[in-house]
Amino acid sequence: MRTQVAVIGAGPAGLLLSYLLHLEGIDAVVLETRDREYVRQRVRAGVCEQPTVELLREIGLGARLDVEGLPHEGFSLRFDRADHRIALTELTGKSITVYGQQEIVKDLIDAHEARGLPVEFEVSGVELSGVDTEHPVVRYRDADGVAHTLECDVIAGCDGFHGVSRPSIPDSVLKTFTRDYPFAWLGVLARTPPSDEELIYAHHERGFALHSMRSPEITRLYLQVDPAEDLANWSDDRIWSELTTRLAVDGDFVLREGPILDKGITPMRSFVAEPMRHGRLFLAGDAAHIVPPTGAKGMNLAVADVRVLSRALKALLKGDPAPAESYSDTCLRRVWRAEHFSWFMTTMLHTDPDADGFARRLQLSQLRYTASSRAAATSLAENYVGLPFA
Amino acid sequence: MRTQVAVIGAGPAGLLLSYLLHLEGIDAVVLETRDREYVRQRVRAGVCEQPTVELLREIGLGARLDVEGLPHEGFSLRFDRADHRIALTELTGKSITVYGQQEIVKDLIDAHEARGLPVEFEVSGVELSGVDTEHPVVRYRDADGVAHTLECDVIAGCDGFHGVSRPSIPDSVLKTFTRDYPFAWLGVLARTPPSDEELIYAHHERGFALHSMRSPEITRLYLQVDPAEDLANWSDDRIWSELTTRLAVDGDFVLREGPILDKGITPMRSFVAEPMRHGRLFLAGDAAHIVPPTGAKGMNLAVADVRVLSRALKALLKGDPAPAESYSDTCLRRVWRAEHFSWFMTTMLHTDPDADGFARRLQLSQLRYTASSRAAATSLAENYVGLPFA
Repeated sequence: MRTQVAVIGAGPAGLLLSYLLHLEGIDAVVLETRDREYVRQRVRAGVCEQPTVELLREIGLGARLDVEGLPHEGFSLRFDRADHRIALTELTGKSITVYGQQEIVKDLIDAHEARGLPVEFEVSGVELSGVDTEHPVVRYRDADGVAHTLECDVIAGCDGFHGVSRPSIPDSVLKTFTRDYPFAWLGVLARTPPSDEELIYAHHERGFALHSMRSPEITRLYLQVDPAEDLANWSDDRIWSELTTRLAVDGDFVLREGPILDKGITPMRSFVAEPMRHGRLFLAGDAAHIVPPTGAKGMNLAVADVRVLSRALKALLKGDPAPAESYSDTCLRRVWRAEHFSWFMTTMLHTDPDADGFARRLQLSQLRYTASSRAAATSLAENYVGLPFA
Repeated sequence: MRTQVAVIGAGPAGLLLSYLLHLEGIDAVVLETRDREYVRQRVRAGVCEQPTVELLREIGLGARLDVEGLPHEGFSLRFDRADHRIALTELTGKSITVYGQQEIVKDLIDAHEARGLPVEFEVSGVELSGVDTEHPVVRYRDADGVAHTLECDVIAGCDGFHGVSRPSIPDSVLKTFTRDYPFAWLGVLARTPPSDEELIYAHHERGFALHSMRSPEITRLYLQVDPAEDLANWSDDRIWSELTTRLAVDGDFVLREGPILDKGITPMRSFVAEPMRHGRLFLAGDAAHIVPPTGAKGMNLAVADVRVLSRALKALLKGDPAPAESYSDTCLRRVWRAEHFSWFMTTMLHTDPDADGFARRLQLSQLRYTASSRAAATSLAENYVGLPFA
């Protein structure tokens, strides 16, 4: 079996890459270890930067997003029991759109199916070889356990942080950078209308809280917890009580409660692998880098990678290797910007159990300054709505 | 002996306060442990924020500053062997003025002497008492060893980090916040024209360097060194060689060398004491807070404190205690802003020997972003030129 680009992973990075390549007339096969329904339902990020939205529209995948997506022109920084609005659109001319990552994945899977583009779910035993030759090979077993050998020109590693692609690059080549934060997020999906039209990023001495939403009926809420926290300690009552405390404000805000549909604890980590390319293997998205969720950058970085990669592969397959050779450097500049911004948002908003009094006072001064200086708010806003694709 | 305000310390804070009070018709006596010549010659900060310059002009002390001060409309961030100009005036409408702290001190001493305002040098054994009553007392010995008792309405503690004023506030009242940095500055005063018209803040893997000046003939240069470094290890040759390495740039910059007139090593520390007032004792300047020198905020904070304090004391002595009661909170907001900015500049520009690869990459991304985003550069610039006095 042969294709031009073997795409490992059917998350947003892999599916979007496959689709972009299809639009350029390049054949790809997507291999995914999970089953189709799991991939379509998996709850992940929900904030799309404007460049992400523009790309989805440009390739004809904006129809449902334009109906169901919730455009946001600002959000609130809540601290000292007061709201301080970051007017994204007024400050930058751009906006963000709340539209769940799994909705984008559904749209992409539907688009693949409508065009008969190959996405193989439930594969196992994926092995990459020959990545430093011009004829790499992917071996795997399909859902029925039948062994396959997929010959290709290029492998795109879009299989996330725990995937096989990154470990296929020799240790001697790969440098990795990691930061584990002393925080985790307890995330809750609740069937209740949002308590406010906008996102609320709340800094509270008991810890960070975030009010977000997925639709006019579904609220998404997060609480900072210890990374070692046991979800079993968090009854629904305790979650609502803690959210109410941390989101308290002098004003008419009332937190709307409702049945909790899903809850989980996610640790927070920064991770970057350099380079993002080795021979004919290109990493994109979480396979190459992880950000803490505070800046809402994870999925958007994956989209940016794939935008650059699709063009680089088109050129490479036509005999021009230059864009492929600069792929890693081009992406890493944006990646490190997002890593810095995510670190900035995370450290500004969370309550660090190890912080001394000096650090806590600095943090409060930074929050007050960000909320009161147009330049500082613009800096935050331009990073949040998304710097232009490279 | 009696006065209205006993001012402890004849640095810029104490002398400026005494002079501002004089202009309001309030009597003050300044007590200083050092001798007159030491105080006039002591080399310290050199960057005056625009609000500082405006205040000095407003009170008639701008004449020499306007002739000898060097106005600056920008400075350079130098890293990756390239210059990235922060256009202070274009971004904020304001500028800074390079005019040595000791020049301001000389102007203030001359103004006191011209008007016969009492400044006692070489005092010893200074003791404050009754600060929580309405009749505090300062006991001291004059230059001839004669004991004096100075009765007053208010004591202004302007005697720096090591002075007696802050320890006169009970430990149970005072909260202190400290951060020691793993850096020190080796500062050099050299008889040679500056190598560039503007200040150059250089980030280099071997450590931070700063090109500055005091006059068209005198250059002021700094090198990041370890706080435990011994000055004896730094011959003039080694200093010039290291400066040349760290200030290297792809361009036509040549570091001008010359005789070194003075050199010294200063550790870098952040320190804040809260509150800045206890009863009738008010702290101002370094007595209450220290910043690392990177943001050029130390003297400017002292000037801002004293501007607020002179008004508060005027009101207090006329029977209105409200401004005196809010003095500490008013100043601390600006102090913490400056502490945060100084921390930001310090951590962005210095090479932390303990930083891991992740931290080093974040730092580089922050530098590149600051140099390329108008919003980020404006945020830096508005802090550097000085936010308006409270």
